[in-house]
Amino acid sequence: MAETDDAGFGMQELIAKLEAFAAERDWESYHDPKNLAMALSVEVAEIVEIFQWMRGDRSRNPDRATREHLRDEIGDVLIYLAMLARKLDIDPLDAAHAKLEKNRLKYPAAENRAPSSVFAEDPLQD
Amino acid sequence: MAETDDAGFGMQELIAKLEAFAAERDWESYHDPKNLAMALSVEVAEIVEIFQWMRGDRSRNPDRATREHLRDEIGDVLIYLAMLARKLDIDPLDAAHAKLEKNRLKYPAAENRAPSSVFAEDPLQD
Amino acid sequence: MAETDDAGFGMQELIAKLEAFAAERDWESYHDPKNLAMALSVEVAEIVEIFQWMRGDRSRNPDRATREHLRDEIGDVLIYLAMLARKLDIDPLDAAHAKLEKNRLKYPAAENRAPSSVFAEDPLQD
Amino acid sequence: MAETDDAGFGMQELIAKLEAFAAERDWESYHDPKNLAMALSVEVAEIVEIFQWMRGDRSRNPDRATREHLRDEIGDVLIYLAMLARKLDIDPLDAAHAKLEKNRLKYPAAENRAPSSVFAEDPLQD
Repeated sequence: MAETDDAGFGMQELIAKLEAFAAERDWESYHDPKNLAMALSVEVAEIVEIFQWMRGDRSRNPDRATREHLRDEIGDVLIYLAMLARKLDIDPLDAAHAKLEKNRLKYPAAENRAPSSVFAEDPLQD
Repeated sequence: MAETDDAGFGMQELIAKLEAFAAERDWESYHDPKNLAMALSVEVAEIVEIFQWMRGDRSRNPDRATREHLRDEIGDVLIYLAMLARKLDIDPLDAAHAKLEKNRLKYPAAENRAPSSVFAEDPLQD
Repeated sequence: MAETDDAGFGMQELIAKLEAFAAERDWESYHDPKNLAMALSVEVAEIVEIFQWMRGDRSRNPDRATREHLRDEIGDVLIYLAMLARKLDIDPLDAAHAKLEKNRLKYPAAENRAPSSVFAEDPLQD
Repeated sequence: MAETDDAGFGMQELIAKLEAFAAERDWESYHDPKNLAMALSVEVAEIVEIFQWMRGDRSRNPDRATREHLRDEIGDVLIYLAMLARKLDIDPLDAAHAKLEKNRLKYPAAENRAPSSVFAEDPLQD
């Protein structure tokens, strides 16, 4: 998938397109970060809805139609996340890379391997 | 911010780092798309919480500490979105660009300018 | 609205009806608390969607059609909340009364009046 | 649990207590339905967080500490739902009973039993 970035279909081009899309429709006045955060949560709920009654193991292999639906919803979530980040002058990819480094320090691999996590979260598991 | 993608701090590198992070901790077994969708919604709620009592106009200019907090939470949302997309073999940037094209057809600029939208959503406005 | 409880259209009757509704459809096997929590979040997002582009002050006076829509969605949220609570042998009204008492101790009125809260949440004010 | 309503610890008393609680703190100005909908979604996410990595079957038998945590969160969700409904002059219990009747007509038991639902949602199941 590396071609995606190489070909220029990257985050910056997405943000530029989103600004033009909103400007063409005069929607900018609606795009308070507060409102965009609400819209982001609504789009994420559309992903949650797809999985709400599905068994966890089955969610790893959705049928073709469900995967297409998920692709649209994942696209919508990234669209609203990028719009929100842009309003706040935050680069979402930089933010994710920086947060992942913080998570590395917060959850050292040696002390956070699955078995202990399982026990911590789920005492019933013998 | 174009250097971000050029420098390789792009979506693909993020996904590669996330896979290594989970593998080092044996967390892969928790990462059903169903569970990742739940975690994504929890991270988005942390953004919503920041804005819940804030006036919309003020949300455009958060103070420095709030912006730093938002940067972390936006990073977490993109982290879980990228992990979810990866499990489903979906490229989140391709999905967003494709969905934006669909939105262009669904909401033609000429028929979807703000005034009519305002009226549609808010009949009380004069 | 006191007649509501007096007339027996209370929480207990709602829970009894919900159990019969699920039993008639053999839906009980889907109703893990985990799945019900997801469904609850999806229903709440339908309320958030109604308000996402609406100004806060206007949200206090929705038009008649919007209020009817909100009534349905509030009903759905209470339905899933009651189903989730029932699965966990928790009485939602007892839980709410008990939590409110905890909140009283956590946020003493004398130290938590609006002005200070506003300043705490929004340093830009004044 | 019928004593709960009989004893007066019902929805109406909860709403009356919530109004007094907010009035004592001058919080009423924050309580736009829009803001309350956001707060409601944040509280629901605290329930989702408890279950996000837990297996569905295990979520039916949480340990004692987790059940106590869930009781608090379910209480918070009902608190915000009741506050939101009150601002809109909606009785949440009446709304839930009315919506359940609508759902009865929308999903007739004869045509909506589990097996077909399972197949509809999950084509992979044998």
